[in-house]
Amino acid sequence: MTDATDVQAFEDGSAEDRELLGGKGANLAEMVGLGLPVPPGFTVTTEACREYLRTGELADDLWERIEHQVDALEEKMGRTLGDVEAPLLVSVRSGAPASMPGMMDTVLNLGIGSVAEEGLAAETDERFARDAHRRFVEMFGEIVLGIDADALAGVRDEVVADAGVDDASELDADQLADLIGRERDLVRGETGEDLPDDPREQLRAAIAAVFGSWDNDRARNYRRMEGIPDDLGTAVNVQAMVFGNRGQDSATGVAFSRDPSTGEPRPYGDWLRDAQGEDVVAGIRATEDLADLADEMPEIHAQLTDILQRLEEHYRDVQDVEFTVEDGTLWILQTRTGKRSAQAALRIAVDLVDEGVIDEDEAVRRVSPDDIDRLLHPQFDPEVDYEVLTTGLAASPGAASGEVVLTADEAARRGRDGDAVILVRIETSPDDVHGLDAARGVLTARGGLVSHAAIVARSLGKPAVCGADEVTIDLDAKTFQVGDVTVSEGEVISLDGATGEVVVGEVDLVEPRPEERFHLLLRWADERRRLGVRANADTADDAATAREFGAEGIGLCRTEHMFLGDRVPLVRRFVLASDDDERTDALRELESVQEEDFAALLEAMDGLPVTVRLLDAPLHEFLPDTEELVAADATGDLDDEGAALLDAVRTWAEVNPMLGTRAVRLAVLHPELYRMQVRALVKAAERRRGDGGDPHVQIMIPLVINGPETAAAIGWVREAIDEVDGEGVDVSIGAMIETPSAALLAEEIAGEAQFLSFGTNDLTQMTLGFSRDDVAGRVVQPYVDQGLLPVDPFQSVHEDTVGRLVRSAVASGRRGREDVDLGICGEHGGDPDSIRFFHDVGLAYVSCSPFRVPVARLAAAHAALAERDDDR
Amino acid sequence: MTDATDVQAFEDGSAEDRELLGGKGANLAEMVGLGLPVPPGFTVTTEACREYLRTGELADDLWERIEHQVDALEEKMGRTLGDVEAPLLVSVRSGAPASMPGMMDTVLNLGIGSVAEEGLAAETDERFARDAHRRFVEMFGEIVLGIDADALAGVRDEVVADAGVDDASELDADQLADLIGRERDLVRGETGEDLPDDPREQLRAAIAAVFGSWDNDRARNYRRMEGIPDDLGTAVNVQAMVFGNRGQDSATGVAFSRDPSTGEPRPYGDWLRDAQGEDVVAGIRATEDLADLADEMPEIHAQLTDILQRLEEHYRDVQDVEFTVEDGTLWILQTRTGKRSAQAALRIAVDLVDEGVIDEDEAVRRVSPDDIDRLLHPQFDPEVDYEVLTTGLAASPGAASGEVVLTADEAARRGRDGDAVILVRIETSPDDVHGLDAARGVLTARGGLVSHAAIVARSLGKPAVCGADEVTIDLDAKTFQVGDVTVSEGEVISLDGATGEVVVGEVDLVEPRPEERFHLLLRWADERRRLGVRANADTADDAATAREFGAEGIGLCRTEHMFLGDRVPLVRRFVLASDDDERTDALRELESVQEEDFAALLEAMDGLPVTVRLLDAPLHEFLPDTEELVAADATGDLDDEGAALLDAVRTWAEVNPMLGTRAVRLAVLHPELYRMQVRALVKAAERRRGDGGDPHVQIMIPLVINGPETAAAIGWVREAIDEVDGEGVDVSIGAMIETPSAALLAEEIAGEAQFLSFGTNDLTQMTLGFSRDDVAGRVVQPYVDQGLLPVDPFQSVHEDTVGRLVRSAVASGRRGREDVDLGICGEHGGDPDSIRFFHDVGLAYVSCSPFRVPVARLAAAHAALAERDDDR
Repeated sequence: MTDATDVQAFEDGSAEDRELLGGKGANLAEMVGLGLPVPPGFTVTTEACREYLRTGELADDLWERIEHQVDALEEKMGRTLGDVEAPLLVSVRSGAPASMPGMMDTVLNLGIGSVAEEGLAAETDERFARDAHRRFVEMFGEIVLGIDADALAGVRDEVVADAGVDDASELDADQLADLIGRERDLVRGETGEDLPDDPREQLRAAIAAVFGSWDNDRARNYRRMEGIPDDLGTAVNVQAMVFGNRGQDSATGVAFSRDPSTGEPRPYGDWLRDAQGEDVVAGIRATEDLADLADEMPEIHAQLTDILQRLEEHYRDVQDVEFTVEDGTLWILQTRTGKRSAQAALRIAVDLVDEGVIDEDEAVRRVSPDDIDRLLHPQFDPEVDYEVLTTGLAASPGAASGEVVLTADEAARRGRDGDAVILVRIETSPDDVHGLDAARGVLTARGGLVSHAAIVARSLGKPAVCGADEVTIDLDAKTFQVGDVTVSEGEVISLDGATGEVVVGEVDLVEPRPEERFHLLLRWADERRRLGVRANADTADDAATAREFGAEGIGLCRTEHMFLGDRVPLVRRFVLASDDDERTDALRELESVQEEDFAALLEAMDGLPVTVRLLDAPLHEFLPDTEELVAADATGDLDDEGAALLDAVRTWAEVNPMLGTRAVRLAVLHPELYRMQVRALVKAAERRRGDGGDPHVQIMIPLVINGPETAAAIGWVREAIDEVDGEGVDVSIGAMIETPSAALLAEEIAGEAQFLSFGTNDLTQMTLGFSRDDVAGRVVQPYVDQGLLPVDPFQSVHEDTVGRLVRSAVASGRRGREDVDLGICGEHGGDPDSIRFFHDVGLAYVSCSPFRVPVARLAAAHAALAERDDDR
Repeated sequence: MTDATDVQAFEDGSAEDRELLGGKGANLAEMVGLGLPVPPGFTVTTEACREYLRTGELADDLWERIEHQVDALEEKMGRTLGDVEAPLLVSVRSGAPASMPGMMDTVLNLGIGSVAEEGLAAETDERFARDAHRRFVEMFGEIVLGIDADALAGVRDEVVADAGVDDASELDADQLADLIGRERDLVRGETGEDLPDDPREQLRAAIAAVFGSWDNDRARNYRRMEGIPDDLGTAVNVQAMVFGNRGQDSATGVAFSRDPSTGEPRPYGDWLRDAQGEDVVAGIRATEDLADLADEMPEIHAQLTDILQRLEEHYRDVQDVEFTVEDGTLWILQTRTGKRSAQAALRIAVDLVDEGVIDEDEAVRRVSPDDIDRLLHPQFDPEVDYEVLTTGLAASPGAASGEVVLTADEAARRGRDGDAVILVRIETSPDDVHGLDAARGVLTARGGLVSHAAIVARSLGKPAVCGADEVTIDLDAKTFQVGDVTVSEGEVISLDGATGEVVVGEVDLVEPRPEERFHLLLRWADERRRLGVRANADTADDAATAREFGAEGIGLCRTEHMFLGDRVPLVRRFVLASDDDERTDALRELESVQEEDFAALLEAMDGLPVTVRLLDAPLHEFLPDTEELVAADATGDLDDEGAALLDAVRTWAEVNPMLGTRAVRLAVLHPELYRMQVRALVKAAERRRGDGGDPHVQIMIPLVINGPETAAAIGWVREAIDEVDGEGVDVSIGAMIETPSAALLAEEIAGEAQFLSFGTNDLTQMTLGFSRDDVAGRVVQPYVDQGLLPVDPFQSVHEDTVGRLVRSAVASGRRGREDVDLGICGEHGGDPDSIRFFHDVGLAYVSCSPFRVPVARLAAAHAALAERDDDR
């Protein structure tokens, strides 16, 4: 059957056939089409693989077609597999449509055996031929026959030791013959059969092994993680071998069409004379850079540079090429889109627009939100080595080094003195914020990506590694421990919150350098996105940072911090008050200090909307720690105030505080709390107006469950506005949709509220019944690892459940009020996958940490472009 | 307009016109139609009221029609309003379509003034006329003019004191004239106007006042609570006065066609010679019973008995009648369906079927689930007086007296000794179960209707009063306090868990006496219901009780108790184990003891399904209290095991345990826990089979969130069944739908699970974000009181949210598996309103506490009958 598509010579394919030929095969075909010097060969396609996976065997008619292609290849090369005169050797490589780590990769020098070795020796020399044979036996043994790599290495080490040399490359021809013999013995011992000497038998086994590796555990797990369908299958590329190790006119290397680290528009690469590709990768010998190639092999260099340029123009993107020079002839073995650093991604995208190669849409597509994120934070220098002590959750990007401190007070004191410190805690609470603020970074043993430490660190733009569960802290000894390693307070550690790595000692950092191209690309993104991007910012400083990063307002100002710090005594007076007068007094003082907080915030966001969430936390968060009071009580060290506090702590303690007496519920019990906040806010806005400012206030009621409750809360807000004659201020009043109940009743809530803001953190917690503080590390990770959840639902919106509630609430909210303003202010507001979802359901804006704002701007543009692409 | 329906003479209406005439007016019309001796009159209808409420005034044309009816009434009676010869007096009474406490009620003797008083005095005597006048002034003053009742009473007390008599009934004619004068002076002082002397002016004001009272706060609140529409309006009945206080041939009384307390089929009532109706109600003079009427006024008695019988036959239900004998003539002033005790309701319903008056459907309808509940529990004797110390939530019905004990251990010890004790705690935990089990009842200061104490008490059929937040406990002093009252350990208190009342000292109780009629009525109910009724039962004892009450299986066996008591050391060994071997050992021992538990349970429920929920609680529930350990640590009293336990407590402590590492999540971390439980259960079932039993096992996975997780858990269950060769046992495996996520993904879960059981407790907690332990008393009650929630969502399913999730999960569950078995096992399974809902959405069964099973059987029958009625 000549029209069969299960085996194709490179010259018969094209890059369009990626699904059929796999990525590698499609690119080889494309290069042949471009007339580039590619060693001839053919692709056994994914169609053949799928058939193999169905039947469990390589069908005879397929094998016939493969042999037909082998015949054609022999004819093209003027060489024959297993020939004693002019033996043909081939490489066999897998190549799936998507990059697929974990599958069987490459067997080189296939076709060699006792006969071909003799032929090859005659053409080159005996040592070269035996070395090629040795390499084949090792690769075929490990990869196709499944011999333990350590066992093979053991045999090799014996021979190397017997020979008294340093490694296998120094073995002479006889010693190599001995090694080959012993390796073949090992194979026979392990498998009960000889390693096949017949090249066609070798080829058939190698192709079957590649196909079979599609179904191994690592490949399956990878596909599940990446959402790649199990039924795609992989292709296999069979290609004539060329040798970069055939003497001083031979060489091998990898080259990029532009610098993948900086993005500079000049070819970049490494090469080695008289070597095979694996020698470059293994780093046994020091490689030379491409400038040296220009000096040493000027013609090859000119030819390679030309090819790189042609490939980049053809693919309209940076190419990463494998090349080999055999006896003065340049061969291109592979090309693919070049992986690049964040910085390079940005520069290349913008440069390619300048060069007229791609348009702005494409440039925006080419930079990932992760790239933008990395550009905003220092990182461990990728050029230096370090030993990782432990790895936790990558909770807030950026890297830092500093001396270990174990309490927030100590961090605050040392930080004030200008010392670089890293706060290490089991977990953090609102009481630790001053320490987090003063530290360069934070490491916690417990808590997930949306734990207190993680959220605060992200909002401060500081690195955090959370839920590092190997860490145990001994506060008495002032140390923490990971396995056998003990780290004392005062010792320096480093952490990278983009990778979760923790290192003892200092690690060199690479500082962020947002440059003109950064702002240009984000302007392009802004022109394309439909979603607005606001920031979660609690203070004037946060607001200023957010504005610099392009935030179009504040989507969430948490007012809890206005009750902390030096206000704690006032809050405690309110809680402990024995009558209304005392309570009113305490609130009056809180009102006047909070007015200043709001005034500063509104000034920093002048002209843009500022969404203020009224008090959300339960009262016991402003009270001292129970255990300390209990311990003091047990030892008789509790004074009268302490006793009153212990009473209050016990009164207000809750079994499940997240579902307890907080937010609007607390306000139902004490409406004066919300009235106080609203008066302070509206008075601050009035003052801004008096000073010629342009304040836009949005007041948000948290944790509502239904319409009547929302109406009641909005009633107190309106009363408070009236109390301070705030009619002149631009105020809208809305509700947070963060209980499943509110999502289900969005219609009646929107009947009362002018805007709805989804609080997807709490909505996720309640919908899945996942307390983020408790299950994030302990439960969610095992669930994701075991495939019980597709993704960490605190990182990306769980579309099947939380997403479904959001989607239906958007529709019903609009039924309740046609022009209801819809946004989202949970941690998901900074997650690209979630942003795509929020775009799709039609929200007006997302709100995220200030440092995530640029990320969100880009992700929102990606969402808009993807939608446009889908519509085509 | 003669066809106007806003005013109607009694003889023109019928009981069909209830909406228009109100309940009272409709019954008066009906009695006139039956030819009974009803004083003539007319009804100003609800239509007139609605018009009044719209316009705020009594329209002139309406008033014309009223005057027309007054003219007709005068003609009929041969008397004239305000006449000096034969004055007509009338009563004015409100009468809404539904019973409506809180509205203006009754003005008697309207029409009297200086002229009519003279006429009446001529007909009777001066003292009688003045007394009638005095009564009118007081009622009209208070009810129509809004004069403070205490102010009126103050004037009366002065005159009574001046006269040197005991009360107003002893005042002579002159003193009454003085009193009337002073009362009229008070009215003038308060209102600035004279109390009207003109009868028609009185009438117009009284009618307007009744209409206006429809909108007062008490009436509005009542309607909101009862779900009565605000736009129904009330009617007003104007009726010629007859006097039971015109001498020895006059009398007044109330009579029931059957005994409303016992249901005995004989007329029952109270009457007074020479008295007005209010004297009977006020209880100033000792009333006589109807047997005495037979002796003293035999003809009247015969006539009344005949009328009662005719009314009962006509209305096909027990009637409660007001009658007056004026100068030897019997008048019936009102009839209505008689309220009755639970016992009477049951007896009357069954007797009326025996008598052929109603059918079995109607008998089932006539008994309320609350009646059934009351019949199963002792109550405070309604005949005795007691002083209520405090009132908490009525958490588990029944009443008990006993000595106060403040710890579970003490309760257990004293209970074992046979002492009657009441356990008083701030709240209870699983550690207190032995104390709850030994006590006669429990009182808690915190916790709601689904708190631990409430649930356990209901499952034990013991009275509980929970969330009595006035109670503070001082464990050191061994007392508890309510306001100024201190109650010490050992003092006797009584509590009634059907009313929430707590009393110091012993209160006489009425014991439950389920009799043959009880079982007969429930058999009728069983024949009518579609919903199955199972019980939540954890032990063989519970199961036996449930079976006696008619449970058709166990819908929820919580296995937590199998990890408590003498098993706690084993569980702690499991938690503290340093390696797998230790863990396995501990589990092996747990397995063998749990096998015995399951064997007993299956024996008690032989032949019926037994649904076993695998471990649901988090591990820290089996660890000691943190505070105790912390205190011991602070004082240096912690031994090595204590230190290990403190470590474990801290490791497993959770911020929001309800949403934490429990149930199937704990099993994902430790699948061997579930395997152990399943092996024990299946081995027990195998043994039952070997012993000739008929076990039906349903294994239920709690707290699932999606399909893959359910599949994984079912996988462990199947493995465990295989491990013990349990293929011969009838086992089905299902999942609990108790997270919103599970409700949303019911389709994929039903694809894995053979049955789904809704856990509406947790589903309510997560959907509304209400931690029942924390908000039940503190938040939910204010929400209900303020109209922010229609009903306590832990008592009745919140249909708009939780109900919506259940409804959609039922539909999608059936898409996932056509024949999926659907039930509900939350506390709502015993709530009649929720049962109606579960019937409507098409569940197969409800499961509730054993003592609620009869209630649920009846409620399920009501649901089926209501559905049939709706379909008509």
